[in-house]
Amino acid sequence: MSAAPETGTIYGVGLGPGDLELLSVKADRLVRGAKHVAFFRKAGREGQSRRIAAPLLGDGVIEFAMEYPVTTEIPLSDPRYNEILSAFYADCAAHLQALAQGGEDVVVLCEGDPFFYGSFMHMYTRLKDVVPVEVVPAITGMSGAWTATGAPITWGDDILTVLMGTLPEATLTEQMASSDAIVVMKIGRNIDKVRNALRAAGKFDAAWLIEYATMPNQTVQKLSDAGDKVTPYFSIIVVHGQGRRP
Amino acid sequence: MSAAPETGTIYGVGLGPGDLELLSVKADRLVRGAKHVAFFRKAGREGQSRRIAAPLLGDGVIEFAMEYPVTTEIPLSDPRYNEILSAFYADCAAHLQALAQGGEDVVVLCEGDPFFYGSFMHMYTRLKDVVPVEVVPAITGMSGAWTATGAPITWGDDILTVLMGTLPEATLTEQMASSDAIVVMKIGRNIDKVRNALRAAGKFDAAWLIEYATMPNQTVQKLSDAGDKVTPYFSIIVVHGQGRRP
Repeated sequence: MSAAPETGTIYGVGLGPGDLELLSVKADRLVRGAKHVAFFRKAGREGQSRRIAAPLLGDGVIEFAMEYPVTTEIPLSDPRYNEILSAFYADCAAHLQALAQGGEDVVVLCEGDPFFYGSFMHMYTRLKDVVPVEVVPAITGMSGAWTATGAPITWGDDILTVLMGTLPEATLTEQMASSDAIVVMKIGRNIDKVRNALRAAGKFDAAWLIEYATMPNQTVQKLSDAGDKVTPYFSIIVVHGQGRRP
Repeated sequence: MSAAPETGTIYGVGLGPGDLELLSVKADRLVRGAKHVAFFRKAGREGQSRRIAAPLLGDGVIEFAMEYPVTTEIPLSDPRYNEILSAFYADCAAHLQALAQGGEDVVVLCEGDPFFYGSFMHMYTRLKDVVPVEVVPAITGMSGAWTATGAPITWGDDILTVLMGTLPEATLTEQMASSDAIVVMKIGRNIDKVRNALRAAGKFDAAWLIEYATMPNQTVQKLSDAGDKVTPYFSIIVVHGQGRRP
């Protein structure tokens, strides 16, 4: 009778904004060496994190695609939304747990930084007291975006506020007006609301729109020069701080 | 007669929070391959970025230490402070410019992310229209800090506000009260003011103090458990968002 295998570790590995050279040395090593990878994606898509990591994945890597059961069909306010997502996360966590308890390490591929508005945290909270879990931080998408603008985001004592386009317009306006530097994410269908809030806060003319930061198809333009449509997923709006500078 | 050398590039390379494995693949390559490195430091110190990068520096690397002429001897409000710093930055930029125009690439070692409250931006703004300058983003110190706490910093629609401890107490309190997730940096001698503001905003009991995030001497504790003194430089306070989570 052989001994039970040593429990494996679930690694939540941040991939950064998209450019493979911006993975950390640690993330690069873990992804290249992974026997098992897991990643979230919309059904029918390759998945952004899978696509970023693809060139690094070894032959014969075993992939576990965690496909969201709902995206936009059910409104966030519907109680079924949370129920369905909870059951989905529980299933995914059970699969990862079984792999770890069978002695396998699993690298969960995460866009950006895993603890900054990510999906991995739903696995993390379910697994951290059950099996070993390690989080590898990464360059955030917003860091990729402000670097792409060719101007520092914050100087001196500047206040930086990070806002989701899904917030109410009044909240967006108020927060934008009381901050020096601003980052807005989750823009997509909220773009008109975000534009209105920036105008009301007097910051519209200072706003930049970055799409696909650090990726080959990166674009950087003043928001006022952008058309009506923005890329639903990889768009970030940035307003630079103008703080003290000798 | 030989041709003039091709102009070199000044690289502003973010080193991340401190752990060498958290350098990006690109930063790692640039630092290891550098013939010239430059870095800011206080007079008489090794310099934090120099210390982080030390194990990667090649034999015979040529170092340019940019030593701050003033630190705390002159108050920020004194006009001489800006004059002295401006002259210092101009001197440093002239030296880097001369190296680039002599055909040399220079890697400027930057703690954290170069465009996020860094010193490199003072070189960047002076050089970007004169010689080629490239900025390599990095994992921020705050990302290292929130990862160290073992809990996600932001969920769902959480608002994240980044504040410097040097801000007035009333501003700190107001910003803390209207945000979900909070990061406070530049704490040092401002710790009492920051504590007061967190208390006034009702967030003191939820605050964590992280010192030396990702470094061998890392500490993580509730701020309420911390003594009166905090590490002057590498301390970050974090309050986690508690947003929507299925």
